[in-house]
Amino acid sequence: MRYAIRTLTDYSRLLGISGESKGFLYFSTTGFEQLHGSHSSSDARHEGEVGLQSEHIAIWGANTDVGKTLVSSGLVLSALSHSRPVHYVKPVQTGFPADSDSRLVSKVVDSMCGDDRLVQNFTSSTLCAWSDAVSPHLAVGPNDSVDDQTLVKRIRDALYDGEYVTILETAGGPGSPGPSGKLQCDILRPLRTPVVLVGDGKLGGISTTLSSYEMMKIRGYSIPLIAILENRERTLENYKIVRANVEEDTVVVPLTACMLPEGDETPDPQLKEWLQDNKKSFDMMIQHLLDSHSERVSSLVSARKEALETIWWPFTQHDSITDENQVTVIDSRCGEDIIVFSPERKTLKPLYDGCASWWTQGMNAEHVPGLAKHVAEAIGRYGHVIFPRNVHRPALDLAKSMVKDVGAPWASRAFFSDNGSTAVEVGLKMAFRKYMKDHDLLEKEEIGIDVLGLHGAYHGDTLGTMNAVAPSVFNGRLQTPWFQGRGLFLEPPIVYMRQGKWVGIKGNDEFEVGSDDVFVEDQERRAVYVKEILASIDRHVHETKNIVGACIIEPVVQGAGGMRMIDPEYHRAMADVCTTCRIPIIVDEVFTGIWRLGVESATLSLLNIRPDIGCYAKLLTGGVVPMALTLASEEVFEAFGGDSKAEALLHGHSYTAHPVGCSAGLYSLRTMGSPDSNANICTPIQHTCNCSRKPGQTCGKMVPLWDSDAIHRISHLPRVQGIFALGTVVSVQLKSSNSGYESNTAVSVTEDLMQRGIYARPLGDVVYIMVTPFTSKSRCKSLLNELETVLT
Amino acid sequence: MRYAIRTLTDYSRLLGISGESKGFLYFSTTGFEQLHGSHSSSDARHEGEVGLQSEHIAIWGANTDVGKTLVSSGLVLSALSHSRPVHYVKPVQTGFPADSDSRLVSKVVDSMCGDDRLVQNFTSSTLCAWSDAVSPHLAVGPNDSVDDQTLVKRIRDALYDGEYVTILETAGGPGSPGPSGKLQCDILRPLRTPVVLVGDGKLGGISTTLSSYEMMKIRGYSIPLIAILENRERTLENYKIVRANVEEDTVVVPLTACMLPEGDETPDPQLKEWLQDNKKSFDMMIQHLLDSHSERVSSLVSARKEALETIWWPFTQHDSITDENQVTVIDSRCGEDIIVFSPERKTLKPLYDGCASWWTQGMNAEHVPGLAKHVAEAIGRYGHVIFPRNVHRPALDLAKSMVKDVGAPWASRAFFSDNGSTAVEVGLKMAFRKYMKDHDLLEKEEIGIDVLGLHGAYHGDTLGTMNAVAPSVFNGRLQTPWFQGRGLFLEPPIVYMRQGKWVGIKGNDEFEVGSDDVFVEDQERRAVYVKEILASIDRHVHETKNIVGACIIEPVVQGAGGMRMIDPEYHRAMADVCTTCRIPIIVDEVFTGIWRLGVESATLSLLNIRPDIGCYAKLLTGGVVPMALTLASEEVFEAFGGDSKAEALLHGHSYTAHPVGCSAGLYSLRTMGSPDSNANICTPIQHTCNCSRKPGQTCGKMVPLWDSDAIHRISHLPRVQGIFALGTVVSVQLKSSNSGYESNTAVSVTEDLMQRGIYARPLGDVVYIMVTPFTSKSRCKSLLNELETVLT
Repeated sequence: MRYAIRTLTDYSRLLGISGESKGFLYFSTTGFEQLHGSHSSSDARHEGEVGLQSEHIAIWGANTDVGKTLVSSGLVLSALSHSRPVHYVKPVQTGFPADSDSRLVSKVVDSMCGDDRLVQNFTSSTLCAWSDAVSPHLAVGPNDSVDDQTLVKRIRDALYDGEYVTILETAGGPGSPGPSGKLQCDILRPLRTPVVLVGDGKLGGISTTLSSYEMMKIRGYSIPLIAILENRERTLENYKIVRANVEEDTVVVPLTACMLPEGDETPDPQLKEWLQDNKKSFDMMIQHLLDSHSERVSSLVSARKEALETIWWPFTQHDSITDENQVTVIDSRCGEDIIVFSPERKTLKPLYDGCASWWTQGMNAEHVPGLAKHVAEAIGRYGHVIFPRNVHRPALDLAKSMVKDVGAPWASRAFFSDNGSTAVEVGLKMAFRKYMKDHDLLEKEEIGIDVLGLHGAYHGDTLGTMNAVAPSVFNGRLQTPWFQGRGLFLEPPIVYMRQGKWVGIKGNDEFEVGSDDVFVEDQERRAVYVKEILASIDRHVHETKNIVGACIIEPVVQGAGGMRMIDPEYHRAMADVCTTCRIPIIVDEVFTGIWRLGVESATLSLLNIRPDIGCYAKLLTGGVVPMALTLASEEVFEAFGGDSKAEALLHGHSYTAHPVGCSAGLYSLRTMGSPDSNANICTPIQHTCNCSRKPGQTCGKMVPLWDSDAIHRISHLPRVQGIFALGTVVSVQLKSSNSGYESNTAVSVTEDLMQRGIYARPLGDVVYIMVTPFTSKSRCKSLLNELETVLT
Repeated sequence: MRYAIRTLTDYSRLLGISGESKGFLYFSTTGFEQLHGSHSSSDARHEGEVGLQSEHIAIWGANTDVGKTLVSSGLVLSALSHSRPVHYVKPVQTGFPADSDSRLVSKVVDSMCGDDRLVQNFTSSTLCAWSDAVSPHLAVGPNDSVDDQTLVKRIRDALYDGEYVTILETAGGPGSPGPSGKLQCDILRPLRTPVVLVGDGKLGGISTTLSSYEMMKIRGYSIPLIAILENRERTLENYKIVRANVEEDTVVVPLTACMLPEGDETPDPQLKEWLQDNKKSFDMMIQHLLDSHSERVSSLVSARKEALETIWWPFTQHDSITDENQVTVIDSRCGEDIIVFSPERKTLKPLYDGCASWWTQGMNAEHVPGLAKHVAEAIGRYGHVIFPRNVHRPALDLAKSMVKDVGAPWASRAFFSDNGSTAVEVGLKMAFRKYMKDHDLLEKEEIGIDVLGLHGAYHGDTLGTMNAVAPSVFNGRLQTPWFQGRGLFLEPPIVYMRQGKWVGIKGNDEFEVGSDDVFVEDQERRAVYVKEILASIDRHVHETKNIVGACIIEPVVQGAGGMRMIDPEYHRAMADVCTTCRIPIIVDEVFTGIWRLGVESATLSLLNIRPDIGCYAKLLTGGVVPMALTLASEEVFEAFGGDSKAEALLHGHSYTAHPVGCSAGLYSLRTMGSPDSNANICTPIQHTCNCSRKPGQTCGKMVPLWDSDAIHRISHLPRVQGIFALGTVVSVQLKSSNSGYESNTAVSVTEDLMQRGIYARPLGDVVYIMVTPFTSKSRCKSLLNELETVLT
């Protein structure tokens, strides 16, 4: 029979001991109560913050029945004898109250500590308990389970600060399911509490110990210590092989076998003897754990100064960093949060990664372990292998998937490179060759070739991509004296929502977009644009004697240029002109592609343009490593055919099509794009888009993530010039006299957001928040609430 | 007492059964004998080749005592009933002959197969056996162990081809040690036999099953099937949670509990009943395994055609690929070998990766698992996080290590980017700024700035790096009409060994290098070069009115330009000139750095040049993912200081300092550079270099890997124009009328090498072999032998 504890009376009666004196915490189906938790600093902590002022240690077992509670007891006693108060926490207990590790440890402390003062220094807690003596996921009933977030929050609250050492004992092995059925090592990952792994000393125990170790390592846990109780026959010495197969920073300690009669949990003579025998080991272990903690904290503290001495950051004026407090130390990442160190508060604090780490991040907490496993598998199987004329499955399947899905229906070929910048350089080479072939210019040496592009565009930092944009602070002579803006750069009309209405801005003019849906086609507006663009090209060719050999755009939204939304009709007009003039169109979807704007490809789905060449990176690997693809039509590919190698595309990078990136890409594309794994992808029944997919196929659009009422409200705020929300992005242009990248208007807004747990980066007078394609609507809602509050 | 089997008589007597009729193979301390192995096609196979004509299945256990042999028996019976002959192989047996899984399975077959024909279709083998009933690493004695290579070879020989299904049953769990003490999953990795993982149905078994699964996945094993015997109480249903946490391509099958009395291995009624009960499951499992095998083979077969339809390879004239046999399918990598599919032979065959996969590979088989684990940990802990003004440990430690070791003593700052090409673009931006600041040119808009470089140089494929080299087929108008060779490109003297002597070639002149050590300084020669270089610069400035604002060299060896060794005196002369004229020196060590030439940095250790800027990539991550570093002196860094952000270095990439690459880099640098982990690094006692390290510190040089006698012999061969061996590289220039990249002289040599199991790539009239910094001298010797044979 299942038993859910509801009151303290129940609990005390059942245990036959005084709950009050031990400071038990317990969880009941009706709520959580803390009876003796005055040492917890949780009240003072921010949401999700974990203190580093004292040591928190998690005891994990390589298996059941390896002696976790024995090791916990030994560590508790040793910490007490170091004159440290100790809090023992058992987050999940089954078989309760017959089984209670808290009670066992308490009894051990009572029995072993003659000194009353030491007993006073000990508290223990059981956070959740169920009566069935089975795995937690089987012990819970339909009404008395606990979800992962709640469990983590309860544990976080039970991590005492101040002088306390907190010892947290998990249940089962790292891969054992918790109450929710998710794996315990995944559930507790947000805490990343340093681990004592209790290994298995029995026959076969080397394998279970090492596989548990690796399972935790690939989830990013630090494991300062492994303790292994010898097998009863004292013959195996498993610790030796274990020691040879773990990192140097993991200490492996053998403990003697414990001959405890099975099932008896009173601290009997054998247990006392065992604890005495291993006292020295436990003292050494506690010392090592305390030292590891100190090293961890000093490493976090010193990282800022060390960074200022060695690192040269991109896009950073180092002379403006006058204080090491201007440097943020990142301890780790957990799903959509980055975990940063607060030197003043001595805590680790999650911040929502609201810039998606330079627009690269695509996974949420649930999918990160899967991505990590895929990448690890790719390294184990392939590492890296040279690519020309070779093929391996991850590259092939990623290329096919990108051509078929993102590049449908225009693309047929995939060329790999390393990042957005190289993808665009490759795209430019492709486009120019195609143009020269189409227009019989291959033999003409004297003609200059320019691109058609837009002001505010950004395509990367290598010279070729810099030459493809208008002069600016990023590519001027000061940055690179070799810069030469080689193009006709037009000033595009932009659009945003202002006071609840879509408006367009064209130079000093404004116009109303006559629709609630800014993507609805307007032939009249487009015709005007076409005329203007044609005239500009004519003028340019006449003035420069150069030809226009390629067109390059970031579909719908210019990213680095200020998170600006271009009037979709203008992009369509450019495409119309280029199709007429047989100028190849390159779409730079490095930022905008692969679900960033809520669709696989903004080009086709939002603009209904069929380009010749498309560039993809950033989200391509889901957010772990650099890799890029340039997709091309078969006609572009054929322009590089011929008898000689000199006619081929002679471009390549050492890590072309590296299997790590390809595997990450396959996993990301599959999980992001399927309604089975991503609740944000609308199902075939909800077809609303104008893509070419048949009914019954997934329609290829994400449901809107951002609450349209809130967007409307923000668009009315006095500080707001305009706003748009599209896919994973919400972007607010602030009113400002001094616009552009060098403006500082948005800095104070991002600082306010930071105080509210959102890591955002200013972009001149623009503030934006970017989520992942998996982010829940409720998370988007709370992010938008914070933004609204800050802007109000 | 340990018992080593020495003769068949011993064996048969001990077993009390007829060895001949069962076709036992056995291993003895005096050798290996095959008694009934006519179905093995090993004779026809190349070294290391594994046939795919029939199914090989490896049975692994999540733990000891989970029912591996029961599952093996069930699969054997089912395969026999599918009319397939079956070979059961037990590579490692302890407790022998009292315990013998081979015997148990044989008895099951005898007892269950009424049909005599089926019994005839079964053979079984035990490959190594020891008498102690403990883990193999404890069972072996000092004289009767078996090394990993021998064990793998024996297993490979026991994998039958033809109609046979081979079922291989491992011992213990994936992380259990084999006879050598290495982990079984690492020992058997070269075979990568598809896995049936027998999970654990007991309490705690979910964790051991999933951790075993992940341990094998991160080593690149394919796991088509997991089978789990229910616990005896039939209550846990572990398979459900296991199924929810494995890839979709892994089928999870629950089997009923087996109530076999412990210790009894005769096929008693309970066992028979269990096999009958689960017959349907086993039939399904065998069918799935046969299907998986077919899919595996068809996927390998079809990959070539699929690649030709979708992939656009770098540096490849696709019109020259007229046949899918010109495409190589890579199944996996194993240490220094790539494993390729042979469509004619239907085998997987290891090829030595003699081009180090475009010069990126740095690990050997022993260190790959460590690298994989480090990377996996970095993904689990960090994924990727945005970098400017942020810092994380892997980036910080890698930057510090590179500055301190590779960049000593001149570098103080590390700037991250994605690949060699971007590292050089960054280097150029740094150098030009430094020059303009030093020479008060920041305000002068009209002056053109050129680089000083060498013919035959190669610095990458992006436009900025292409502009920094002389015009060639790679950067001409056909490739990119924006190309502009912006430099003074000098023709350097090259050196090689010819007929046992170092000679220099300068234009049409030849000279003798008056020393056995080509790096010994020769002030006289240098003075001549200095004069020539100064005169060239004067002429260039006079003719073009441009200034020379940076110097860029690949120290010692030009890589892509033809694996040519430049006269070290010439590089020194260039550096002298640049120091005098205050022209910043960029060393492009993307190829030459980080142990490729046997030292951390060729610049300092071999040339004794102190540059201003250094570019590193390729080996920087040990060979898994792209990442680059540009190191700079403090003076260069300071040239970007100032009040405004516009003066900062405004360059950056999304994945700047990605933790995956940084962690891989840290592991690689540490293991490659320490005599503790790399036997090729000379110890402090063997100091022979002129680096700045104190006695007692590691001297920073690798011992010579290539046999100098063989190099001398090859230098005398009639087909050989010249040869040099340096660090991990041996390069042979062949006699040829038509030199350069478009020459085909070397193609036939590389084809011959391929036949001998070495994957090499031609570079015009040059053939080279490249190993890793870990490669053993004996492996280098055998590679050089093959090269000598092919060239003779």
